Amino acid sequence: MHQAVRDLEAELGRDALTVPLIAARAGVTPSTVYRRWGDLRELLSDVAVERLRPDAPPADHGSLRADLEAWAVQFAEEMSSTAGRTYIRDALLGDPEQGNAARCSDYAAEQLKALGVRAAGRGEAVPDVETLLDVVVAPLMYRILFRPSDLSVAYTDHLVGVALGRSAPLSPR
Amino acid sequence: MHQAVRDLEAELGRDALTVPLIAARAGVTPSTVYRRWGDLRELLSDVAVERLRPDAPPADHGSLRADLEAWAVQFAEEMSSTAGRTYIRDALLGDPEQGNAARCSDYAAEQLKALGVRAAGRGEAVPDVETLLDVVVAPLMYRILFRPSDLSVAYTDHLVGVALGRSAPLSPR
Repeated sequence: MHQAVRDLEAELGRDALTVPLIAARAGVTPSTVYRRWGDLRELLSDVAVERLRPDAPPADHGSLRADLEAWAVQFAEEMSSTAGRTYIRDALLGDPEQGNAARCSDYAAEQLKALGVRAAGRGEAVPDVETLLDVVVAPLMYRILFRPSDLSVAYTDHLVGVALGRSAPLSPR
Repeated sequence: MHQAVRDLEAELGRDALTVPLIAARAGVTPSTVYRRWGDLRELLSDVAVERLRPDAPPADHGSLRADLEAWAVQFAEEMSSTAGRTYIRDALLGDPEQGNAARCSDYAAEQLKALGVRAAGRGEAVPDVETLLDVVVAPLMYRILFRPSDLSVAYTDHLVGVALGRSAPLSPR
C-alpha cells in the first residue's frame, strides 16, 4: 500500500491521490483501505512516518560533539526540505491520536541515544536524550514549522554547544 | 465569517462544518467563501490563528523571572488544552505558505518582547526574544505536538531558568 502511494504520487502528484486510485494500484478494494486507515489522511500520515524513519545509524565522526553537529545539520536539512516539511505535516495532520507524531520524535530520540551510547563507550560525558530533544531538536523543529528563519551550520553548532555546556543559550545573531 | 464558524462549531461540532453551511450562516454564497479562502481548511486555519491571538498583555509579577514563569505556565496550559491543540493543528495544516504558523509564533514573540521591555524598564538584564523562543517556547511546542510528556510547572520553571542563565540545560527528571 505504501509503495502504491509512493508510485502514484511520483506519477500523478500529490493532489491527485484518492483512496480508490491507491486501492486499484495496490490490487485491493477501496473498502479494504477504509477499514484499515479510515481515510486518505490517515493513510498518508502512515506513509509519511515511514519515510521519516532513518535508514541508517548516525555516522561516526570520532567525538560526541562532531557526531551531534553532523547529525543536527543533516536533521535540519532533511526536515526543512520540501519533502521533509510535507511528511511532517502529513504525519501530524492524519493523526488525531498523535501516535505518528510520537514515532517521528522516537526516531530522533533513537538516533541521539545511539550517538550517546557510542560516546559513552569512548569515555565521553553524555547529556541525556530529553536534554538533546529540548535543546537541539525542538528549536530546529519549531523554526521549521512556525518560524522560517536561520537553520545554518552556525546555528546548529550553537545548539549542540548549548547541549554540551560549551555555550550559553543566547541565540547567535 | 469567523463568528459563523464559531457558532456552527459550538452548535453542530467541528466535523459537521462545511463551506455551504458556513456561507449560509454568514449570509453569503459559497463561492464568496471559496474566492476568499480556497477551501474549508484555509478558512479554519484563519479562524484558529485568530483564536490563538492573546487577548491581553502578559501579567506583571514584579520581576522578569516571575513574569516569564507565569507566562510559560499559561502558554503550556493553553496550547496543550484540547482547544489549543486543535487550533495549532488547524493553523499549521490549512496553511501551505506558513503565514499563519508564523503569526502564531509572532504572538508569542510579541508577548515575550513586552515582558522584556518591562523588565528592562526595571533595570533587569533581558535575554533576546530569539533565545526565549529557542529555550522556552520551542521545547513546550515540541512536546505538545510530538512528544506527549511532562509540562509541569517544574518543567516550565526549568526552561525559564535555562533562558535566564540560572540553570544548566539538563532536563529535570
